[in-house]
Amino acid sequence: MIQFYAPDIESELTLPEEEARHCIKVLRTRSGDVIEVIDGKGYRFSCRLTDDNPRHATVEIETKTAVPLSWSTKITVAVAPTKNMDRMEWMVEKLTEIGINRIIPLHCRYSERKEIKIDRLQRIAVSAMKQSLKTVLPEITPMRSFNEVIQSSDAEQKFIAYCDPSIPRKLLSCEYRPVADSVLILIGPEGDFSKEEISSAITAGYMPISLGENRLRTETAAFNACDTIHIINQLKQ
Amino acid sequence: MIQFYAPDIESELTLPEEEARHCIKVLRTRSGDVIEVIDGKGYRFSCRLTDDNPRHATVEIETKTAVPLSWSTKITVAVAPTKNMDRMEWMVEKLTEIGINRIIPLHCRYSERKEIKIDRLQRIAVSAMKQSLKTVLPEITPMRSFNEVIQSSDAEQKFIAYCDPSIPRKLLSCEYRPVADSVLILIGPEGDFSKEEISSAITAGYMPISLGENRLRTETAAFNACDTIHIINQLKQ
Repeated sequence: MIQFYAPDIESELTLPEEEARHCIKVLRTRSGDVIEVIDGKGYRFSCRLTDDNPRHATVEIETKTAVPLSWSTKITVAVAPTKNMDRMEWMVEKLTEIGINRIIPLHCRYSERKEIKIDRLQRIAVSAMKQSLKTVLPEITPMRSFNEVIQSSDAEQKFIAYCDPSIPRKLLSCEYRPVADSVLILIGPEGDFSKEEISSAITAGYMPISLGENRLRTETAAFNACDTIHIINQLKQ
Repeated sequence: MIQFYAPDIESELTLPEEEARHCIKVLRTRSGDVIEVIDGKGYRFSCRLTDDNPRHATVEIETKTAVPLSWSTKITVAVAPTKNMDRMEWMVEKLTEIGINRIIPLHCRYSERKEIKIDRLQRIAVSAMKQSLKTVLPEITPMRSFNEVIQSSDAEQKFIAYCDPSIPRKLLSCEYRPVADSVLILIGPEGDFSKEEISSAITAGYMPISLGENRLRTETAAFNACDTIHIINQLKQ
């Protein structure tokens, strides 16, 4: 199944130009054919193409179906962007595939990257959402400071993952309680969070955690943390 | 900590040329300095450099330390290689980081790639082993046929992951028993395993499994499967 992404499909009844080009030029869909469209907000539409102009393709909606997320815990990962953008892009693709609600690029003490353009990351998330047959687009926020994130989160369970062995912590897999309706996990840069950051987070109610005995790259840690939440949630079912 | 890889360090007392160049040209290590060397077989050596010739660096071993794997279950993933080699390379890096014993490229009915060069994958595994501070190099075997793999494996628990919803299966997270001393998971190509392959595997004692509700790319499925084994193992500790 191929899904086209049109965030305003319901009000505008047109495909964005890039999607229209793919639909009509590449896949040679014609007026009268039926296509599947998602809005990134949890709905899938079965649409009949009414104009196969690749610049201004219009549709009429035949059916609208709510396709809720397959997981119930709202998962946010706040992660210090890696120096190498390929690794960030890979991370966004993989988090979207396994299922995430929100990604916050985190500006912290030892961040290797202090600025980040999120447009390209958002396009990767769109592509991964379509490919993995989801209907909800993860939110990718602009970069936020560490302090802003730890002071403002209202997640039910909050964790900070770090490597520093001198500050006690337990495994995320053992600490996470699947009753949580929302969870936030902070993942630090290659140089780890500073001791002050770890201490502020703990004071702000974050549980200190480890992701196991392996030294993981930032993007691997983010994937592993999100995967852990899904796997522990599966066990309670 | 920087680890150098020299599989024959104990018998030859020299660094391979690529490692010697990095050690001496890039990091400017000199005769008399102490470096850490791993052999990929579970040992770390503290070595004193006795000749800082970048083509033929020699060492004397000061200490030899056994560094066992941090996990006890022997994990094998047999996976149909993706068409795009970047995705395979990414997969090898990530599986090595989170911990795997053996990767078998699998030739199956709907494989998109019927041949694979494993040299480059092995170099990526070496690099990820060093980076993640492991001392054991995962084995990457030449490509094997589906039938050969399912007939010859002696793993204690064996699983086949597939998407076909018409053949009943349960979640890996719920089916895997952490008492296993060895586990093998088959991961299919983008076009899935054929019904005949699934049926032969089940007859050969493989448990049919799903990795959850998401449609995952091959390389993501392999990572997720290996991650699931580690997370369930963590819970029993």
